[in-house]
Amino acid sequence: MASAPRDPTRVRRRPERAAYDADAIVAVLDAGFLCHVGVVRDGRPVVVPTLYGRDSDRLLLHGSPVAGMFRDLGRTPTVSVTVTHVDGLVLARSAFHHSLNYRSVVIHGEAVELVEPDEKVRALRLFMDHVTPGRWDAVREPTAGELKQTSVWAVPFDRASAKVRTGPPVDDAEDYALPIWAGVLPLGLTAGMPVPDDRVPPEVAVPAHVSSWPDVAPG
Amino acid sequence: MASAPRDPTRVRRRPERAAYDADAIVAVLDAGFLCHVGVVRDGRPVVVPTLYGRDSDRLLLHGSPVAGMFRDLGRTPTVSVTVTHVDGLVLARSAFHHSLNYRSVVIHGEAVELVEPDEKVRALRLFMDHVTPGRWDAVREPTAGELKQTSVWAVPFDRASAKVRTGPPVDDAEDYALPIWAGVLPLGLTAGMPVPDDRVPPEVAVPAHVSSWPDVAPG
Repeated sequence: MASAPRDPTRVRRRPERAAYDADAIVAVLDAGFLCHVGVVRDGRPVVVPTLYGRDSDRLLLHGSPVAGMFRDLGRTPTVSVTVTHVDGLVLARSAFHHSLNYRSVVIHGEAVELVEPDEKVRALRLFMDHVTPGRWDAVREPTAGELKQTSVWAVPFDRASAKVRTGPPVDDAEDYALPIWAGVLPLGLTAGMPVPDDRVPPEVAVPAHVSSWPDVAPG
Repeated sequence: MASAPRDPTRVRRRPERAAYDADAIVAVLDAGFLCHVGVVRDGRPVVVPTLYGRDSDRLLLHGSPVAGMFRDLGRTPTVSVTVTHVDGLVLARSAFHHSLNYRSVVIHGEAVELVEPDEKVRALRLFMDHVTPGRWDAVREPTAGELKQTSVWAVPFDRASAKVRTGPPVDDAEDYALPIWAGVLPLGLTAGMPVPDDRVPPEVAVPAHVSSWPDVAPG
């Protein structure tokens, strides 16, 4: 079996950090909204950042039908999607043992385009309420024309793995005697104060789904 | 020329958001430390999150020599590296015009392994001082054995593009009359309080390179 393709979802490095169960994968996916999509274009890898939503056990992507990523998927739907959350710099006593606390998911799958209008609207609602829960009910829904200008794709994540590192640095035994500060600098994506655009009437207040957007504060 | 490979660095969607000059690219790269590396493995795309540093006009990657990513690069050095900073959710009046404020760089290049020990140490110093400026001088440097256990690769970014979106949502003219809150929710990666590990002696204070780590506060 030496020449058989390796299982792309099997985590080979640091397997003790890996998880394959759906709960672990969904927990990482639901903590974020930005992914990096990898496709093969003219034989070369291309990695594109984009937002995502989740519909049960599949990731949702959307964008312009003429976006390069979707044209690539139209030719070859094999895709790799990675979601990564940075949780902290792990600062060890030795340069060698520095690391990062993080949570990540890597998905390998075949993307499927959603074409039926009702299915697209449903997916767009799930998408928006994933990124900003509660937003869909507050905004003008897409027109038929806008729907045509929006490609929606689903990537099933039945072939996925999560990888998580937490906790303090792990130094070599003899290095703990060194008078070097070591520990974790917690990091996380946080929200600032909402900035209304210039044409929001003064009587329209910041809605709760914006002011209480679920940020992930470090530490 | 219809069958010629497309220039992978040319931004086709929203070209008004694109920049190709080195200053724009370096500004995005120096504002972060996490990248997503795309390689082709068994004909499929694989996207792996990893840290990076910068050495002038090339990106530095490092890790275990047995990491899948480096084994892939040893076979086929063609790589796509993407760096993305999330700056804010762009909340429009219509679902359709929602967007993200972000800065990203996509690099296409051929990765080169650095093998000469002095060159590796120099690269590792640049790498560490990119992620945590000032850290290298405070820690124990790698031994010869640790250096052998560390692969260091450089990816020249002469073929790269930056893409940036800033500012408020842009709605259709007639939608501005709707009583819907619209604007930007600023987002950014921020640092919390440093957490020393249990074995740091009490007389070893948090160093300035940790307490004043350059976080990017939102808003």
